[in-house]
Amino acid sequence: MQPLAITMGDACGIGPEIIAMAFARGALPGSFVVGDVEVLRRAAAIVSSVERVGLPVAVIERPADAGDVPPRCLPVLVPPGLPAGVAGLPFGRVDAVAGIAAAACIRHAVALALAREVAAIVTAPIHKEALAAAGEPYPGHTELLQAEASAGPVRMMLANDELKTVLVSIHVSLRRAIEAVSFEAVLETLRIAQRAAVRWGQAAPRIAVAGLNPHAGEAGLFGDEELRIIAPAIAAACREGIDARGPFAPDTVFMRARHTPEHPGEFDVVVAMYHDQGLIPVKYLGVERGVNVTLGLPFVRTSPDHGTAFDLAGSGRADPASLIAACQMARRLAVG
Amino acid sequence: MQPLAITMGDACGIGPEIIAMAFARGALPGSFVVGDVEVLRRAAAIVSSVERVGLPVAVIERPADAGDVPPRCLPVLVPPGLPAGVAGLPFGRVDAVAGIAAAACIRHAVALALAREVAAIVTAPIHKEALAAAGEPYPGHTELLQAEASAGPVRMMLANDELKTVLVSIHVSLRRAIEAVSFEAVLETLRIAQRAAVRWGQAAPRIAVAGLNPHAGEAGLFGDEELRIIAPAIAAACREGIDARGPFAPDTVFMRARHTPEHPGEFDVVVAMYHDQGLIPVKYLGVERGVNVTLGLPFVRTSPDHGTAFDLAGSGRADPASLIAACQMARRLAVG
Repeated sequence: MQPLAITMGDACGIGPEIIAMAFARGALPGSFVVGDVEVLRRAAAIVSSVERVGLPVAVIERPADAGDVPPRCLPVLVPPGLPAGVAGLPFGRVDAVAGIAAAACIRHAVALALAREVAAIVTAPIHKEALAAAGEPYPGHTELLQAEASAGPVRMMLANDELKTVLVSIHVSLRRAIEAVSFEAVLETLRIAQRAAVRWGQAAPRIAVAGLNPHAGEAGLFGDEELRIIAPAIAAACREGIDARGPFAPDTVFMRARHTPEHPGEFDVVVAMYHDQGLIPVKYLGVERGVNVTLGLPFVRTSPDHGTAFDLAGSGRADPASLIAACQMARRLAVG
Repeated sequence: MQPLAITMGDACGIGPEIIAMAFARGALPGSFVVGDVEVLRRAAAIVSSVERVGLPVAVIERPADAGDVPPRCLPVLVPPGLPAGVAGLPFGRVDAVAGIAAAACIRHAVALALAREVAAIVTAPIHKEALAAAGEPYPGHTELLQAEASAGPVRMMLANDELKTVLVSIHVSLRRAIEAVSFEAVLETLRIAQRAAVRWGQAAPRIAVAGLNPHAGEAGLFGDEELRIIAPAIAAACREGIDARGPFAPDTVFMRARHTPEHPGEFDVVVAMYHDQGLIPVKYLGVERGVNVTLGLPFVRTSPDHGTAFDLAGSGRADPASLIAACQMARRLAVG
């Protein structure tokens, strides 16, 4: 079983300490961190004082060495290109140096994944302003991963036990998100969702498509993107053998897709037209349960579905539950 | 105690039968229906056969007569201007005649409320296409009520046990909803939410304001409405003594505001920038629990937060739970 690479994220946020917390609890067997040794030592010290356990940091040279590190140790692989002084940055502040370091970790993890030295990548949260301050042209993880992997179109999926939603667009303004709703983008999202679901063992996923406008435009009364764009894209997907349905009223399609023991969902996946349409329902019951999955890359990549939480960073009070869930989902998807 | 007026809604939808079902169960004491007698007789017959109870229809002349109608009867007050043949329309179809009838019922209920002959109005669902086919210039209940009551600005609030959200705009395309996010509209929404909460006994409501863009624009990286419009409106509201906070990331503000026994919410009300932003989380746990309240009218008006459900209409299987919840909330708000 190949190891899982976890990128440390923004050093001024909660990324390093939730990683350290998860290792201190023994929750991440067969994993290692791509990061700055001093940043991880700082995180281990915070966790040690909060959890009252020792957490030594072990520097490894290659991913395969992660298996030789004893439990309750924090294996760290140092990527090339790390700037100096990252561990000296104060918590909770946007800093270009933290952005440079975070990007270097992600790039190295991608190289390891493409070389098939790791089973999957799990990324701790980065701060988009720090990434921008570092001069990166990418608004977030997804775009950076896509560029580094020279992948075709990718999509963000957010998932918890109840709901899986795949987004047509992500980190753009709502105005630009509306422009991004094109026939090709909706159809491609359906294809990516279908391929991903099949790969995970769902032979004929029922994919619901949300409308863009209230009540899915109510037959053109408020907005016509459903008639002009979304319905034709669904029809085209159906012609390709995809069980795509809709467009449905956005305010009820997520409730209808929700799977619980008492409420079997009507759909397996919901395609959402923009970031908040899909993320509001996935996060409504608690962010600790959500996992972010990038579909369309040549490797598996997951991440917790929360941010850097600058207000909590350094306190040792951040919850590693979503990171642990992301690692567990990465394992499941990588094996499948 | 004055009676509650319930408008019958679209005769081709589930409105009449959920009203009849609620009366058959004795759930609506001190209430009466503004509607077409034959439509309500048809609904009572459906409910009688499903529930195996008799439900006679009693025509009343004035709201005050509702109290004289025995329990498990359906008191109906017939408004002026009803078209002929409404009860002959097939279920589940958009029809201009149904739209004309639905609008006549709403107009009469407003007149009764303005004359203080009823304590509040509860409206069963109408179909927006039928309303448009009837030549009404109003896209929905809220706009029609506002015009009939000659009220100032009104806002839709959606509420269940866990969450209250007040919307800046409702039945417009998402493109137009973005245009509707102005300094004045956001500030007015905050004022209306504040006044309503105070009237219901919450002296200092904590009002969270959602951003418009993903991550509330992340400091201007994707969208600047938060910086240009929303934050200044919040600041202006604070200067008026309103405890307005934000703008917060839309994908987590509703989760943060969610009140449950295990999770006391951080906020009492969330101001949402557009229809689906607020309605997706309120409906996520089930539409039967949600109630729609119009804030800013000179009387109390509530409604169930579901539609006409044409696919269910006539079957007797529609759930009256949200209508009953709407009547209970109307009672509470009208007394307060």
